[in-house]
Amino acid sequence: MSEVSTGSTTEGAEGRALADHTVSVLGGTGPQGRGLARRFAAAGLTVVIGSRSAERAGETAAELAEATGGTVTGADNAGAAAAGDIVVVAVPWDGHGELLAGLADALAGKIVVDCVNPLGFDKQGAYALPVEEGSAAQQAAALLPDSTVVGAFHNVSAVLLDDPAVETVDTDVLVLGEVRAATDLVQALADTIPGVRGIFGGRLRNAHQVEALTANLISVNRRYKAHSGLRITDV
Amino acid sequence: MSEVSTGSTTEGAEGRALADHTVSVLGGTGPQGRGLARRFAAAGLTVVIGSRSAERAGETAAELAEATGGTVTGADNAGAAAAGDIVVVAVPWDGHGELLAGLADALAGKIVVDCVNPLGFDKQGAYALPVEEGSAAQQAAALLPDSTVVGAFHNVSAVLLDDPAVETVDTDVLVLGEVRAATDLVQALADTIPGVRGIFGGRLRNAHQVEALTANLISVNRRYKAHSGLRITDV
Repeated sequence: MSEVSTGSTTEGAEGRALADHTVSVLGGTGPQGRGLARRFAAAGLTVVIGSRSAERAGETAAELAEATGGTVTGADNAGAAAAGDIVVVAVPWDGHGELLAGLADALAGKIVVDCVNPLGFDKQGAYALPVEEGSAAQQAAALLPDSTVVGAFHNVSAVLLDDPAVETVDTDVLVLGEVRAATDLVQALADTIPGVRGIFGGRLRNAHQVEALTANLISVNRRYKAHSGLRITDV
Repeated sequence: MSEVSTGSTTEGAEGRALADHTVSVLGGTGPQGRGLARRFAAAGLTVVIGSRSAERAGETAAELAEATGGTVTGADNAGAAAAGDIVVVAVPWDGHGELLAGLADALAGKIVVDCVNPLGFDKQGAYALPVEEGSAAQQAAALLPDSTVVGAFHNVSAVLLDDPAVETVDTDVLVLGEVRAATDLVQALADTIPGVRGIFGGRLRNAHQVEALTANLISVNRRYKAHSGLRITDV
């Protein structure tokens, strides 16, 4: 387990080091959210698991605290939103908008990291769903005008994240957003996961294709029997 | 320069080895097309450069033949379409549909490899343009019902491809399509470029995000002063 650096490179949007932020994960009992929470806790960050059920959140939090030796607590999604400085949204696409609309006040002034991939599935595999706002991240930005929305962690294998036997996760995380201090902080958050690099990937208007690319990685996984991810070359 | 393998792994849609195919590149005087043509010629493939102007195509062909020692000739786009067994489409998005609609008969029965990225540019950089058919590749498939359309080579740096001092191009090429024999052949075509791996990336309905991801790589290039590309991990 690596400790979070408190050096100047991890100074955040609010002028605090990353290690001083509480990271909440909404949908933290699902595969992607649980995997991210596990890694953040293992890195020494204070983590709050959010779920529709506070009880299930508490159970997952207890498991991850025991597994990582980190500080992990559970709450319902509203409680987790209120508790976090950085709030990771890892809920299913179905219900994404409704959840965020109800949390706009709780999330005001915070950095909201949207990881959601709007995908459909049929016999031929996964495909991108149309999103009226363009992408899940842009929908979040529209619903949360007083938050700073960043898109990230779309293409990281939940299986690898949540497997404690996997020591390093060999992938880059594209981080998208409008506010440099916020994308820098989320890149530092990605960097806490061994093997992962946070790479700035553009503005939110270019989030759709990063979300949708997960459908291609699902095709890759099926063809090659892999847990695929991305690396950005020449960076 | 590497020679094209004639082994069984490069058997193509028509049961012939890749080396027995003529590869035409429509838009072969533009940066992406010229870079691809250079690499295919260097690999020992017979290449035909297509351009609106047969004269300019001939000039580029002569340059590339001299530079690579390969077999490269030039023609107008219609002539190049007629000459190729595999026809790479590397024209600007503006005019893509009109060009292909006029070449439907010439391209019947062939493998058409669409590399086109429908992007717009403004002060904030690049962004994905909406495409009625979903993607440039799907537009090509709609306009060319008697061809086998494959999407590929969207995210490869034209600068690196066209620079003879760059010996290996450190990137993967996502290859999309409906027909396994055709995507296998185009993967083998990608593999002829030193450093490149052709990776199956799904069906054409998932081409949009691969095309659009080029906008993100342009953002990466700007931020990191790079010529970025993709690697797929765990494959």
